Amino acid sequence: MSTPEIPTSGDYADAFPNSFRVFDESSVPTPSGPVPIRVPMREVRLSGGEPSIRLYDTSGPRVDDVRVGLPKLRAPWVEARKGHSSPTQLHYARKGEITPEMAFIAAREGLPAEFVRDEVARGRAIIPANINHLELEPMIIGRNFLVKINANIGNSAVTSSIEEEVEKLRWATLWGADTVMDLSTGKNIHETREWIMRNSPVPIGTVPIYQALEKVGGRPEELTWEIYRDTLIEQAEQGVDYFTVHAGVLLRYIPMTANRMTGIVSRGGSIMAKWCLAHHQESFLYTRFREICEIMRAYDVSFSLGDGLRPGSIADANDEAQFAELKTQGELTKIAWEYDVQVMNEGPGHVPMHLIKENMEKQLEWCAEAPFYTLGPLTTDVAPGYDHITSAIGAAMIGWYGTAMLCYVTPKEHLGLPNKDDVKAGVIAYKIAAHAADLAKGHPRARIWDDALSKARFEFRWEDQFNLAMDPVTARAYHDATLPAQGAKVAHFCSMCGPKFCSMEITQQIRREAAQGMADKSDEFRKQGEIYVASRT
Amino acid sequence: MSTPEIPTSGDYADAFPNSFRVFDESSVPTPSGPVPIRVPMREVRLSGGEPSIRLYDTSGPRVDDVRVGLPKLRAPWVEARKGHSSPTQLHYARKGEITPEMAFIAAREGLPAEFVRDEVARGRAIIPANINHLELEPMIIGRNFLVKINANIGNSAVTSSIEEEVEKLRWATLWGADTVMDLSTGKNIHETREWIMRNSPVPIGTVPIYQALEKVGGRPEELTWEIYRDTLIEQAEQGVDYFTVHAGVLLRYIPMTANRMTGIVSRGGSIMAKWCLAHHQESFLYTRFREICEIMRAYDVSFSLGDGLRPGSIADANDEAQFAELKTQGELTKIAWEYDVQVMNEGPGHVPMHLIKENMEKQLEWCAEAPFYTLGPLTTDVAPGYDHITSAIGAAMIGWYGTAMLCYVTPKEHLGLPNKDDVKAGVIAYKIAAHAADLAKGHPRARIWDDALSKARFEFRWEDQFNLAMDPVTARAYHDATLPAQGAKVAHFCSMCGPKFCSMEITQQIRREAAQGMADKSDEFRKQGEIYVASRT
Repeated sequence: MSTPEIPTSGDYADAFPNSFRVFDESSVPTPSGPVPIRVPMREVRLSGGEPSIRLYDTSGPRVDDVRVGLPKLRAPWVEARKGHSSPTQLHYARKGEITPEMAFIAAREGLPAEFVRDEVARGRAIIPANINHLELEPMIIGRNFLVKINANIGNSAVTSSIEEEVEKLRWATLWGADTVMDLSTGKNIHETREWIMRNSPVPIGTVPIYQALEKVGGRPEELTWEIYRDTLIEQAEQGVDYFTVHAGVLLRYIPMTANRMTGIVSRGGSIMAKWCLAHHQESFLYTRFREICEIMRAYDVSFSLGDGLRPGSIADANDEAQFAELKTQGELTKIAWEYDVQVMNEGPGHVPMHLIKENMEKQLEWCAEAPFYTLGPLTTDVAPGYDHITSAIGAAMIGWYGTAMLCYVTPKEHLGLPNKDDVKAGVIAYKIAAHAADLAKGHPRARIWDDALSKARFEFRWEDQFNLAMDPVTARAYHDATLPAQGAKVAHFCSMCGPKFCSMEITQQIRREAAQGMADKSDEFRKQGEIYVASRT
Repeated sequence: MSTPEIPTSGDYADAFPNSFRVFDESSVPTPSGPVPIRVPMREVRLSGGEPSIRLYDTSGPRVDDVRVGLPKLRAPWVEARKGHSSPTQLHYARKGEITPEMAFIAAREGLPAEFVRDEVARGRAIIPANINHLELEPMIIGRNFLVKINANIGNSAVTSSIEEEVEKLRWATLWGADTVMDLSTGKNIHETREWIMRNSPVPIGTVPIYQALEKVGGRPEELTWEIYRDTLIEQAEQGVDYFTVHAGVLLRYIPMTANRMTGIVSRGGSIMAKWCLAHHQESFLYTRFREICEIMRAYDVSFSLGDGLRPGSIADANDEAQFAELKTQGELTKIAWEYDVQVMNEGPGHVPMHLIKENMEKQLEWCAEAPFYTLGPLTTDVAPGYDHITSAIGAAMIGWYGTAMLCYVTPKEHLGLPNKDDVKAGVIAYKIAAHAADLAKGHPRARIWDDALSKARFEFRWEDQFNLAMDPVTARAYHDATLPAQGAKVAHFCSMCGPKFCSMEITQQIRREAAQGMADKSDEFRKQGEIYVASRT
């Protein structure tokens, strides 16, 4: 494994001083010969002779002109598999074949490729990787891997442009988004998505019913299977990696929402509910589910089975409607697996802390351990403007309990469309939640990062502490707000306590004195007995 | 109970539009006759005929001139008790007497006064209320009450002035701080504290060893019992309501920190560790503990038994040093109770999620259910600049598990001294954590707030949604960032999804149509059976 240094474009170097995008290089044997694998990592260089550390990197290659798009990393891999009966990763995993995607992921996660294959084969993890999304750096979603986060972007009828959305994609992945959902509902929905696909190193998810609804002028009752089917194919052709499909919203579940505090809060759920009631029949998402599976198999688009009846308030958490749909999600999961189509399940939403675990337990049981993908959950409704925090609490907990991917919530949730600052705030809050979950789950790579930063902190290596931070620029700016002088970057204190009260400095003094004491008067210390152990420092 | 309307000064009205500080009025029978009680609440007035809702209010009376100080609410209560053997709330509670402070708290929490008395008598809750802090609006800290939060303020040798600290106090209580700790370590420590006491409607805590250390020029080894004792008396005279005392840092525990990643991170802990090693004897905080109890009893100052050996990194969580000290905190708790002195116990710090519960369980067991008061805990070390979030996750969880008060962490933690924005960010993050914990614990008053806000959201009462938010101004500003027009405040959608995709609007349409449908074709619906329930709306 060599680690060539790659020059980083402006925003990467600005965001992560003294970090470099490097590659772990290896190769994977395939039926058509060995295939080279180059896995990007963020290498943080440290001072004082400390070894560099490598962190998972989602930022992707940076290109100056978005109209050129990213390099087509997967082109040879996909080309080599052409002509097989099914192109899905689940198909190959079940056959016992380790794909280049799986090998890439194994190196990225620090786990054996065979383990990756086995988790995919069991349906316990998915690799969202449309055969037409060649720019993708493969990643995996499953509870025995690092917890992932999704960032939503997308214009609405009210505001925002294509350029802004591509920039939000680049921005979200720079800060750590593992997948991005394009939830555009406005004009130029096809073209916006095209530019997003061609510039995305991470899987892109969509909710195809949004575009289908645009095609019928926004009137849910006019939706048809044919329009929806054509939309699926249109988006699959572009390379969308996973589709949210609200196929679990059944006619008989809709009345269960009648006495809710906040009714149906999923856009897709409410659209399908309206269609079902207007036609008084089950939705085509449910009745045509096997046909949908066939389309998705042809492109290896993964299902994200939507939770159209998720609770939209603390009052509605874990109610009959929500769990009725979850059971149906479980039935649909098994049908998709018949077609070798990969599946994850979407989950809530708004759930107070004491009701979170039940969501995870029921999902594991009813959905046969398919990956869970939750929105938060928000643990209280009273703090609009801060829902990245109300939900990071729930997200960290459910991530620890086993949720594989956490859909971020920005400070603008319930209020408006996120701008770049909001996207970053949401991504950082969710990287924190995901990493806290990784620590709690004991992921072998998680603790290394915390330990490196804590050691830098204790040793007053301020620059290292900043550079290791999830957001180095903010950490440095906060420090410099009170102690801007360059000398403060080597000081053995900060402005919080000042020099006399720095506990870490006092501790270091104690350790130095203890070490000195050992030399000077080890006999005396030994007589005291109880202080002896201190002299080990 | 009447509810006179009180004019609010500028900052209160600016912070909470359409909220009013009102009073629940009642009286409590005491040995010296009935005593009137006026408990402040924040009443949020709503539109559309919705009833107002009342929230717990910590903001206190607002005075224009801080040199005048707040009205002395408790003066008659304290005066009436003069000459008794012990002035502590624990003493009265054990005697079976309901003090005006207890009656005030009962009205504030919506619980019977006898329950308040009983919890205090059992040591399971404390009422930090120095007999010389007459400006205090009494509050209670215990796990069967609302979870409380503490905000730290205080100048350091490096920066900040008295005026700034008093303004931070007012600012912190405006946003919801239930107690404030003055951690000043710089110049004018006595005078700063005096102005804080005279302007504080909430209990003030301090760490007296900080001022004692200033008196010996910052050299821990020169500290003496006499200097410390005089400092305790000086601060108790001023009215400080609780003292952090690191009496559990024993000589034999210090070596347990030798191989830690981050040693000792408590300022008080490191000061006492240095003293113990320099003198090679147990600290005077431990050997003179009974004398300290006598001083604190004389003023009814509560103990906050410090956790001087708390972990300062994920690597050090739940280690031998930490738990050794916690056991000693338990022994000291029982000694303080012998003197009728109220006690809470401080807890960590930095703890990954899966190790949080053990902290609560051991504290309950070893410290005989005395209230637990934790700093966070931070659930990861990798996000300096965002430690209000890394720690709000841990704080919400441990609050749910039973921690009675959560010490806030601001975004500047580990980096610098918080300014007003940081104080607000820390307070809001912790109000969220505390409220999420109240919901999870099923506090009867907690859900009312969430339900009122969710109902406003579902009914598109935007102004009510903003006014009910924990931070109304921010919620409104985020909404207006994309839809500033006044008409948008009554619109049945927001910029997140735009008009066509608003799930809540679609749900309302469904409900209207279902209601209409009931009238039009109830027979047909009944035949279908499964849709019948929907017609209830």
